Amino acid sequence: MSRYQDIKQAAYEANMQLPKLGLVLFTFGNVSAVDRALGVFAIKPSGVPYEELSPEKMVIVDFDSNVVEGKLRPSSDTKTHAVLYKHWEHIGGIVHTHSTYATSWAQAQRDIPIFGTTHADHNTVDIPCAPPMDDKMIEGDYEYETGFQIINCLLKRNLSYEEIEMILVGNHAPFTWGKTPHKAVYNSAVLESVAQMAYLTEQINREAPRLKDSLVRKHYERKHGPHSYYGQ
Amino acid sequence: MSRYQDIKQAAYEANMQLPKLGLVLFTFGNVSAVDRALGVFAIKPSGVPYEELSPEKMVIVDFDSNVVEGKLRPSSDTKTHAVLYKHWEHIGGIVHTHSTYATSWAQAQRDIPIFGTTHADHNTVDIPCAPPMDDKMIEGDYEYETGFQIINCLLKRNLSYEEIEMILVGNHAPFTWGKTPHKAVYNSAVLESVAQMAYLTEQINREAPRLKDSLVRKHYERKHGPHSYYGQ
Amino acid sequence: MSRYQDIKQAAYEANMQLPKLGLVLFTFGNVSAVDRALGVFAIKPSGVPYEELSPEKMVIVDFDSNVVEGKLRPSSDTKTHAVLYKHWEHIGGIVHTHSTYATSWAQAQRDIPIFGTTHADHNTVDIPCAPPMDDKMIEGDYEYETGFQIINCLLKRNLSYEEIEMILVGNHAPFTWGKTPHKAVYNSAVLESVAQMAYLTEQINREAPRLKDSLVRKHYERKHGPHSYYGQ
Amino acid sequence: MSRYQDIKQAAYEANMQLPKLGLVLFTFGNVSAVDRALGVFAIKPSGVPYEELSPEKMVIVDFDSNVVEGKLRPSSDTKTHAVLYKHWEHIGGIVHTHSTYATSWAQAQRDIPIFGTTHADHNTVDIPCAPPMDDKMIEGDYEYETGFQIINCLLKRNLSYEEIEMILVGNHAPFTWGKTPHKAVYNSAVLESVAQMAYLTEQINREAPRLKDSLVRKHYERKHGPHSYYGQ
Repeated sequence: MSRYQDIKQAAYEANMQLPKLGLVLFTFGNVSAVDRALGVFAIKPSGVPYEELSPEKMVIVDFDSNVVEGKLRPSSDTKTHAVLYKHWEHIGGIVHTHSTYATSWAQAQRDIPIFGTTHADHNTVDIPCAPPMDDKMIEGDYEYETGFQIINCLLKRNLSYEEIEMILVGNHAPFTWGKTPHKAVYNSAVLESVAQMAYLTEQINREAPRLKDSLVRKHYERKHGPHSYYGQ
Repeated sequence: MSRYQDIKQAAYEANMQLPKLGLVLFTFGNVSAVDRALGVFAIKPSGVPYEELSPEKMVIVDFDSNVVEGKLRPSSDTKTHAVLYKHWEHIGGIVHTHSTYATSWAQAQRDIPIFGTTHADHNTVDIPCAPPMDDKMIEGDYEYETGFQIINCLLKRNLSYEEIEMILVGNHAPFTWGKTPHKAVYNSAVLESVAQMAYLTEQINREAPRLKDSLVRKHYERKHGPHSYYGQ
Repeated sequence: MSRYQDIKQAAYEANMQLPKLGLVLFTFGNVSAVDRALGVFAIKPSGVPYEELSPEKMVIVDFDSNVVEGKLRPSSDTKTHAVLYKHWEHIGGIVHTHSTYATSWAQAQRDIPIFGTTHADHNTVDIPCAPPMDDKMIEGDYEYETGFQIINCLLKRNLSYEEIEMILVGNHAPFTWGKTPHKAVYNSAVLESVAQMAYLTEQINREAPRLKDSLVRKHYERKHGPHSYYGQ
Repeated sequence: MSRYQDIKQAAYEANMQLPKLGLVLFTFGNVSAVDRALGVFAIKPSGVPYEELSPEKMVIVDFDSNVVEGKLRPSSDTKTHAVLYKHWEHIGGIVHTHSTYATSWAQAQRDIPIFGTTHADHNTVDIPCAPPMDDKMIEGDYEYETGFQIINCLLKRNLSYEEIEMILVGNHAPFTWGKTPHKAVYNSAVLESVAQMAYLTEQINREAPRLKDSLVRKHYERKHGPHSYYGQ
């Protein structure tokens, strides 16, 4: 049995959640799971339908994007995952989808405004939309540069990847992450729901105000603060 | 067997209706069921996925929010439920969700206008949106104050909780109630449908008029008046 | 066995199609099936959930709305069905729903413009929205008058009920009919789809033109003209 | 066994994908599969519900629209398929649907702008909307002329049917094609998703810019260029 069996299994299970949650059409999404001790991650093979996936088909890749184990070609977004794992030491899983509402905000090149407590339960700020990359980055090592586009967007806004676990890449689509692959998938579903409700909120009231600071703090601390009282 | 078995079972069954009716993502919702004779209610434990629920996992709480029976922590919204049960003597169940369309109206901070007979079959007035709480209430005992925000909104508008069984809390999400937990869940689904159709109505006709009084009265009395002729 | 067994069975089967096609929430809809020889129709009992329906529970009513057979109270919309059967000799079934998009157009009090061939395959004109009734009609025999509101709307527009088999009642919701209960249900689903696409068409292009006459004629005749070549 | 068994089976399987992917209501769609060596294609019979289809019911037609084998009448859109197979030598399958969002763009008579990488992964240009046909074409051999309307739209825009495998016919609905019937169905689902996201993008940002050239090229070449690295 592969020494990577645990992350293969974890990546497989997390990938299979995407179609169940309605976040992907065909193969337009991928999840990876990292093993920090071994310095590698397991990721979905490229273009393989979800119904044909198995733990064995997951591809093992190191943080410089070299395939370490596996017969299939890894996801075309593998280099983006590798860059994020290399630079963000405390994440355990990454998800990329083209989910309908989050992708539409990315195409509209707008941050998702914080309009309510569903958003505030998970983030204290607008969900950032990184600008499209400049032409040199696109023509160069595109997926590798996508990783830096994400990292630099958070840096510029003075946001920590441990506080905000989701981003839109302008003109492209969302990426989310988390301490575990399962949490990263959870974040993708939350993002899609928040994106849909923000869209509807603006349709219902073009002048809808952003959530006030006291509510932002309260809801975030309910779930994440030192005195959190959500969950078991 | 627990003396609270009946309300545990009722709360469990009502909670399980929420995902079936498409009203919740993950654990973003909760239902409670009251036993007036014993002065307690059963409520969903906090953050537990619906597929892992069972009647035994429901938590028994009194009207001052003290846990009376149960190993798990009750829903983070428990104090809101307790306040409503304490002040509204004739309700048997309460539901809180973050359902998509109702929550979007709450985020837009607008009442839902009465546009048609689907709405009038259940309410004779616009569905109220309580304003966001002031900062002191938020920073204090937040969920407890949320209960009073709901109660006070109806008082100010001179509405009885026995006539209107649903409300939006501004920037947050809907609460509904009823004589039974089952009726409260029914009201949550009706609210979501009415919220979606009101949104679409305004998109189709920005000048859509509210329903005229004669139709409001007729439809409400069809279902609820002394000469009602709907149902068996 | 009841001499009305055939229409009870037909009404039952047609009613059960409504939740399958996503056209009803809870009990917000009803279908009837007529027996012209016997001068009666079978209709859904009022307020009974679809999962508890059976052919035996259908109620038999004559064209003056008298219950002829059945232990349950018939749909609260029964008088509307009776009026239509009495005045329109060639229809075999009637459907009433509160389906999302069609009801939203009814609430917006607008005809549904003919924008494309999906619409033209079934109707050569905009789908009419009857105006809300005047207060005397509403306060009088409401459901009986609803039948005349539908009949008079077609008369005023010089439309035959055999050519257009669907209508919106302003502020209320759609009614559809057809040679058979099955065809009436089919029309309800077509109406809902046409209503959704007309809504989207206007969102995408506020200046979208109505379908030109040559296309209207061609598509309608493809399916319904003397030289129709659709179907077997 | 029929010498056409292979294309009957392929056409059957591809047709059955349409309801599974949510692309058709009732019988509003059809797929065909070609056998270039024999000069015929298999197509869905007209107006037959999907649940009653079988490979044996597929109709075999030549490129001049003559039925070669089969007891049922072929799809009313058969002549459009025949024209496309005759003029486009390298396609293996064709799909026609009235899917919700793509049809709404067709009714709005607008090209679908290229807003993001989901679009660019499949096409380098806006998805064209062919203008409605002139009255003579409509009154003449309508479905035959529809084929030429599609061919001429691509010619006028200097687009190759091998590069862009989808089109909207103004006021009508989408057609897609591909090397295989399966690929043509895939294209229909991609088109529907792209159409929905383009609609949402404009709602979220009325000034949303089209995708810049460098991203268009990069994403298309990732999947389709000589150095493509998507899939296995």
